[in-house]
Amino acid sequence: MKTAITPTRQENFSEWYQNLITAADLAENSPVRGCMTIKPYGWAIWELMRDEMDKRIKSNNVLNANFPLLIPIDFFNKEAEHVAGFAKECAVVTHHRLKMIDGSLQPDPEAQLTEPYIIRPTSETIIGEAMSRWVKSYRDLPMKLNQWVNVMRWEMRPRLFLRTAEFNWQEGHNVFATHEESNADARKMHKMYEEYMANVLAIPSIVGEKTPEERFAGADHTYTLEHIMQDGKALQAGTSHDLGQHFSKSFGIKYLGSDGKLSYAWTTSWGTSSRMMGSLFMTHSDDDGLVLPPMVAPYQVVIIPITREDNTDQLNVYSSVIGEKLKDKGIRVLVDDSDSRAPDKMWKWIKRGVPLRVEIGATEMEAGTLTVTRRDLGKASKTTFTTDDFIKNIQSLLTTIQQDMLNAVKERNKKMITEVDSLDALEKHLKQGTIGFFRIKYVFTQNDKFETLVEQYKISRRCLDENNPEYVFIAKSY
Amino acid sequence: MKTAITPTRQENFSEWYQNLITAADLAENSPVRGCMTIKPYGWAIWELMRDEMDKRIKSNNVLNANFPLLIPIDFFNKEAEHVAGFAKECAVVTHHRLKMIDGSLQPDPEAQLTEPYIIRPTSETIIGEAMSRWVKSYRDLPMKLNQWVNVMRWEMRPRLFLRTAEFNWQEGHNVFATHEESNADARKMHKMYEEYMANVLAIPSIVGEKTPEERFAGADHTYTLEHIMQDGKALQAGTSHDLGQHFSKSFGIKYLGSDGKLSYAWTTSWGTSSRMMGSLFMTHSDDDGLVLPPMVAPYQVVIIPITREDNTDQLNVYSSVIGEKLKDKGIRVLVDDSDSRAPDKMWKWIKRGVPLRVEIGATEMEAGTLTVTRRDLGKASKTTFTTDDFIKNIQSLLTTIQQDMLNAVKERNKKMITEVDSLDALEKHLKQGTIGFFRIKYVFTQNDKFETLVEQYKISRRCLDENNPEYVFIAKSY
Repeated sequence: MKTAITPTRQENFSEWYQNLITAADLAENSPVRGCMTIKPYGWAIWELMRDEMDKRIKSNNVLNANFPLLIPIDFFNKEAEHVAGFAKECAVVTHHRLKMIDGSLQPDPEAQLTEPYIIRPTSETIIGEAMSRWVKSYRDLPMKLNQWVNVMRWEMRPRLFLRTAEFNWQEGHNVFATHEESNADARKMHKMYEEYMANVLAIPSIVGEKTPEERFAGADHTYTLEHIMQDGKALQAGTSHDLGQHFSKSFGIKYLGSDGKLSYAWTTSWGTSSRMMGSLFMTHSDDDGLVLPPMVAPYQVVIIPITREDNTDQLNVYSSVIGEKLKDKGIRVLVDDSDSRAPDKMWKWIKRGVPLRVEIGATEMEAGTLTVTRRDLGKASKTTFTTDDFIKNIQSLLTTIQQDMLNAVKERNKKMITEVDSLDALEKHLKQGTIGFFRIKYVFTQNDKFETLVEQYKISRRCLDENNPEYVFIAKSY
Repeated sequence: MKTAITPTRQENFSEWYQNLITAADLAENSPVRGCMTIKPYGWAIWELMRDEMDKRIKSNNVLNANFPLLIPIDFFNKEAEHVAGFAKECAVVTHHRLKMIDGSLQPDPEAQLTEPYIIRPTSETIIGEAMSRWVKSYRDLPMKLNQWVNVMRWEMRPRLFLRTAEFNWQEGHNVFATHEESNADARKMHKMYEEYMANVLAIPSIVGEKTPEERFAGADHTYTLEHIMQDGKALQAGTSHDLGQHFSKSFGIKYLGSDGKLSYAWTTSWGTSSRMMGSLFMTHSDDDGLVLPPMVAPYQVVIIPITREDNTDQLNVYSSVIGEKLKDKGIRVLVDDSDSRAPDKMWKWIKRGVPLRVEIGATEMEAGTLTVTRRDLGKASKTTFTTDDFIKNIQSLLTTIQQDMLNAVKERNKKMITEVDSLDALEKHLKQGTIGFFRIKYVFTQNDKFETLVEQYKISRRCLDENNPEYVFIAKSY
């Protein structure tokens, strides 16, 4: 069967992904090494994702703020594990002026900074410094802040949405009086992410704590959300860190308790990024292109008038009236009355993953009906509705699609997790090419033989099993 | 009379402004040279401003996208006027890794970039390059894109919100087939800004074209919006540029016409930034602190229960019920049931500029009334409402405040513009310290004597008078 995207997922998943992004007009590699340009359709998806996440963040009494892009090297250097984790991938600003030298524009040697800055790879340090001044007494706690910003981590092998030098994210930074509170908060934000990914992105997460080997640089505990892609690889979609007192000690975040004693505070940080878009696209899409859950679809419904030369205007007007009725119900609708051919329009919106495709031709117009196809189920779902019924039931139709998409991935994931009871069993599976996650006792992975498998098969520990932390999930990853 | 902010505007406008920002907890200077940290209350105002602007941008069929933070020097260099305008204030990225050298963390000499990047001061160049690939035929035009991002222009004398090295803005970039269309569009976006500033920020703008001397680096026409601050100085709050074919020729943005001919396109760019917040704060605030128009007030109403020891819980609950009723009407309300003293709460929210302050004590609770004070009019406006009437009329009360604030500034501005019919007259006014804008024939300013006045009094041409472009507005500026 001819598919809109070639190669298919089966043939070459990685090329399929690249071509999917082009076909849906989501983004492109920019001329800036490792950075991408997010095109309007991709950015519209991100805005919907961001707004849904922002609602949840605010409902947790977190306040948004905005901290500088640049971080003095000196700050960055204060937490040893942190600097070791990020120093190798920092963009460094060393000059504040350009000058024409020998006919070419260059950094002006006379405008060299005495102390260079790095572009934030994450903001624990600069926010830690601010909090050391803002937190004075127990009355100031908890202090919960978030920012939506761009960050930069130099990437040698960039991939659109999955790994880019610059990316957009939200980073939350909370401060508490006690470790009980900070740890509970790190877990609460982790749960918030899990709910968001399930209900907004229609993606079930494998959740749990990272093993010590895989923790964030400077954290006591890292709670992660791992998504299983269609090729069985893991994608880390978000993390929440209990930072203990690492940053409060490095930056002097202290508070005066109700007992008059000065104590170091306890901090957390938690983040999700435009990387989630990579997961969204790879989780749901098929060989005909993008498949979007209604919650984050820029257009939830596209109406395509199937016109003849003699009824173009009439059908376009008729379609736009139906479009307006749907908009009045809060639905995001596009009536594609452009002058392309109907099959071209059809394929355009299939590739872009619009959840519901509505066709209206002369027959439908006369009968007061619509032909509706669900993107997630394809041709088989083609149904005729009366126009009134469709408008009346649109909201529940979209809710059903959203729910069905989540359930479909849940079902698929079940087959993607293999239990193994020894390293030998794991090796056998890897050798024969079993795809997906492997669940194995954590203790079995703490030896040289496991490290050999890591090297050979490019696998890694994704997280401990939340339901039984004696077990760890192993997978190849993005 | 004691005021919440000292010194007063009259005594020292510039110190007053600085202290206003601290008193309202809006922002602070960061340890990063020239950059600020926007605190939660300041950022909440920006989010409201941004969302209102974004609505208008989208209703003009402009699509949001996201382009890289970094720009190759080579790109930047392609438009000569543009590079001359910005090269002196660029942050330059020269390395992509840090290394510990002699015990201190430094840019790794082995990770020096062969071609350095600059942090975008504005994105005409990188967007121009993309558009040269995206625009193919007349069918692709107009192409209208916008992004909400941070930009950086190194500042030697930073001032919170007015001039900071890093700032947040929206930058629109549109492409058209003809100069008629691009010029009309630059003017249309200019008008969009004027309407926004009047109806959202309650600030009337002096609008007109920049003189050739004051144009954007690389524009044929720059249309500006100038606001008159309370000390008579000008603040440039936004600009819209007709870029002619400067960037389309530098980057090769060409389209195939319906006639089969290849032509260079015509581009515009238009931007407003967090600088508008500086204007908002300096335009409306008084010696007791911030005064916010309801449209951009994070809390439009604050309810302060005036409690006694024996009725604290009862009054707090009663107040929160009223708060919920207002929230149900879409009003942003805070019930301040914190354990501070009532006068402290009062001053806190006066300084933060909440449009309506509602006091509820035992007497009011019994009588079913509220004592309401408008922030813009102060004590004199203190009025008793029945609770029902207040809730019923809240929306129109806020609309009235919004309108009154705009009108008050309009009235004040009238006295802030002085007509002068010669350079001598201008000099006399400047010598005697007349504050505000001066309107004079443009031709009178095209000579050395005017340049002497520019030097001596730090004045500049703000813009030509839109109603009579033979005249120009002159003022000191921020």
